[in-house]
Amino acid sequence: MSVPAHLADVVAAARVRVAALHAELPRYGLVVWTAGNVSERVRDETDASGGSDLLVIKPSGVSYDDLTPEAMVVCDLDGELLDGDRSPSSDTAAHAYVYRHMRDVGGVVHTHSTYATAWAARREPVPCVLTMMADEFGGEIPIGPFALIGDDSIGRGIVETLRSSRSPAVLMANHGPFTIGADARAAVKAAVMCEEVARTVHIARQLGDPHPVDQSDVDSLYARYQNVYGQHEGQR
Amino acid sequence: MSVPAHLADVVAAARVRVAALHAELPRYGLVVWTAGNVSERVRDETDASGGSDLLVIKPSGVSYDDLTPEAMVVCDLDGELLDGDRSPSSDTAAHAYVYRHMRDVGGVVHTHSTYATAWAARREPVPCVLTMMADEFGGEIPIGPFALIGDDSIGRGIVETLRSSRSPAVLMANHGPFTIGADARAAVKAAVMCEEVARTVHIARQLGDPHPVDQSDVDSLYARYQNVYGQHEGQR
Amino acid sequence: MSVPAHLADVVAAARVRVAALHAELPRYGLVVWTAGNVSERVRDETDASGGSDLLVIKPSGVSYDDLTPEAMVVCDLDGELLDGDRSPSSDTAAHAYVYRHMRDVGGVVHTHSTYATAWAARREPVPCVLTMMADEFGGEIPIGPFALIGDDSIGRGIVETLRSSRSPAVLMANHGPFTIGADARAAVKAAVMCEEVARTVHIARQLGDPHPVDQSDVDSLYARYQNVYGQHEGQR
Amino acid sequence: MSVPAHLADVVAAARVRVAALHAELPRYGLVVWTAGNVSERVRDETDASGGSDLLVIKPSGVSYDDLTPEAMVVCDLDGELLDGDRSPSSDTAAHAYVYRHMRDVGGVVHTHSTYATAWAARREPVPCVLTMMADEFGGEIPIGPFALIGDDSIGRGIVETLRSSRSPAVLMANHGPFTIGADARAAVKAAVMCEEVARTVHIARQLGDPHPVDQSDVDSLYARYQNVYGQHEGQR
Repeated sequence: MSVPAHLADVVAAARVRVAALHAELPRYGLVVWTAGNVSERVRDETDASGGSDLLVIKPSGVSYDDLTPEAMVVCDLDGELLDGDRSPSSDTAAHAYVYRHMRDVGGVVHTHSTYATAWAARREPVPCVLTMMADEFGGEIPIGPFALIGDDSIGRGIVETLRSSRSPAVLMANHGPFTIGADARAAVKAAVMCEEVARTVHIARQLGDPHPVDQSDVDSLYARYQNVYGQHEGQR
Repeated sequence: MSVPAHLADVVAAARVRVAALHAELPRYGLVVWTAGNVSERVRDETDASGGSDLLVIKPSGVSYDDLTPEAMVVCDLDGELLDGDRSPSSDTAAHAYVYRHMRDVGGVVHTHSTYATAWAARREPVPCVLTMMADEFGGEIPIGPFALIGDDSIGRGIVETLRSSRSPAVLMANHGPFTIGADARAAVKAAVMCEEVARTVHIARQLGDPHPVDQSDVDSLYARYQNVYGQHEGQR
Repeated sequence: MSVPAHLADVVAAARVRVAALHAELPRYGLVVWTAGNVSERVRDETDASGGSDLLVIKPSGVSYDDLTPEAMVVCDLDGELLDGDRSPSSDTAAHAYVYRHMRDVGGVVHTHSTYATAWAARREPVPCVLTMMADEFGGEIPIGPFALIGDDSIGRGIVETLRSSRSPAVLMANHGPFTIGADARAAVKAAVMCEEVARTVHIARQLGDPHPVDQSDVDSLYARYQNVYGQHEGQR
Repeated sequence: MSVPAHLADVVAAARVRVAALHAELPRYGLVVWTAGNVSERVRDETDASGGSDLLVIKPSGVSYDDLTPEAMVVCDLDGELLDGDRSPSSDTAAHAYVYRHMRDVGGVVHTHSTYATAWAARREPVPCVLTMMADEFGGEIPIGPFALIGDDSIGRGIVETLRSSRSPAVLMANHGPFTIGADARAAVKAAVMCEEVARTVHIARQLGDPHPVDQSDVDSLYARYQNVYGQHEGQR
């Protein structure tokens, strides 16, 4: 198998974007060593079913210093390697499952960022007590099930949890956050904001109980932010 | 509308200062992604009423890597865009309200810096238990009301809280800090110091109660620092 | 004594690797000032007993800015200096003891990284409540005995503790972590991951009890990760 | 007054060292904005009384980006400015008092580093529960009195506290740490290690009580470290 000729250019562009976005993960302190991964869906506009879409993702076990566009790997949505010198990330099956089952998702990010993972270790959702959290997440950040790597359990847990939430982030139990977005950049932003609010609410909770925000205010902030903020959709 | 010709030079200089000061926010860990904003008042010396003053502020939803002087936007004190390729920050109305109602304020900064925002989430003022806090804030850092974005609520909450305090920083409930200064640099310094003391007092409190500082000592430290410290006013 | 001629090339290559790996310690926040050290075993393939193996290690009390390949020092496995302008690290005896008694260990790292050292100060093992911890450590990170520097106490405590554990990291009581690996890079990775999980589990514990992970799940994750992950052994 | 001709060269060399050492303070996260200062004594070998010694220190209220050798200022040991375009740090009187009363001290550092200042806010000494703390501090880090700036109170509090302790660091109540050393570099190292152990012991304490270290072991570690460690005295 290989990348179809009519997708070569969009795959090449996605390799550049995905490689560059990986640099945001250590920049914001979300990963150490080779942990964490960003992927982006490459839509095959000639196949309306979405079944021919591809994904570009980080190779397994490679240092963040070596993540050039050429080092990225390309898989189909079953997670099979189409192009790349190295094995795809061991989390590729989870990314692929999300792309297969959530057609509007264009980017997926997985990290073990510290504060989000700490909430995940207690299997406790992050409560929505900040206006920026209402803006970005529209409510709490939910906990997904405990799932082992190796089959579709992680992917299924992500999709089921996110389908019943406004949040673009899910904290998989004892594991860490997965985030989604319209493209890889939006999913990276969600990963950055997820850690930021997980950290801020953690710190607020250390010295007492944060003051709750009324659900109607959460709804109002979320509605406004999703419609008004930013210059372009892609920059959200 | 556009920038009046007689203000073109001072606006250009303010663009340079405001763009450069934005780099201090990620440098001191006060912001992630596109959050946070700095503005500066441009005084129209030909109109003693202050009604013709302008403000220079960050555009909405733009990465800190792209904040050149040209990217800054210029508004009047009703928050209407006069010059700029992008929309002004969604917090512009709050900045403008402060400039309209506090004539001596020349700079405003807003962030969601972690420790300050954590105190804001509990709606608990930061008590003055450090000499550096007495120097800079003259007492506790107060909590402002909970206010939704979209009208003058945030601006009014900032102004009412700061008018009854020596502190150049207010923690808006469940939201985050706004700081003011004689110019943008002073407001940025207040934002940096606000997070620093919010963090230090938080950490002190984690293992017990900080030892209080007598009000007379706070007064004495504040009076001295405001009069003696630094080489120039603008470097405070 | 000096480096035998037939080992000159492999020693030179190890100097380059060990010098470069030292840069990872401040990069990941594991050390301040001149604390911490990385060593690598140089195998003498002409002596199957291992008794002629050497080790390359950081000199004592030298700034991380000055750690060039030439600055590294070479010792035999009794810790005696064979080549180098400076004294070997004061922890060399502990490294040498590990190499003498664990023939498969090719790299050793010692730091005082903050969170790992905090668990060590309480003499409390880090419980295995994260999937990434099951992957990398196969269970808890154990506590070694309290031992003074100056004889074989530290080395013996490291070896005895690690022999009864899957973990490549041991937290020496009131002192800090020592980690091992197949080579120096693997030992540095273990030091980075040790601090990461020590920090994440600490933060999880601050607000309650993490949810335990079943031993069978820990076993399954550990077995898979040791066999599958990464492109090459050396990148683990 | 001006710098005597016979000291011009040693003053010039001290300016270079002191300017460079200031860069270590933000590098290790000990200061924000213009806070903190390093000074070094310049010994006048022609006056055995020490009364003609000078000190080189940071100017007041200047950004760390602007701390060139030329920007440093020179004072006598009464804190009077001898050479420099700017006012000396507002903490100069405290530095000068230390140099006048502790003849073997060649360097002084003052910061508001977060964890050390948090212990200072509770007026609680940092207990000696780490081997690295025994090495460097020989016991607990003591608390000095609460003292206002403006006369000799701070300097006297520093000297009285340090004279009854092995520690090169004192935490002035509700204020922050002052550290001393044989030269400015040693005082900077003490400031870095003071924050490091204040932070590590804080974190250890958050989840329970650290295991105490026997006084005889503290004594043994301290004696060894002060005599053996490092390549040269000056690198301690």
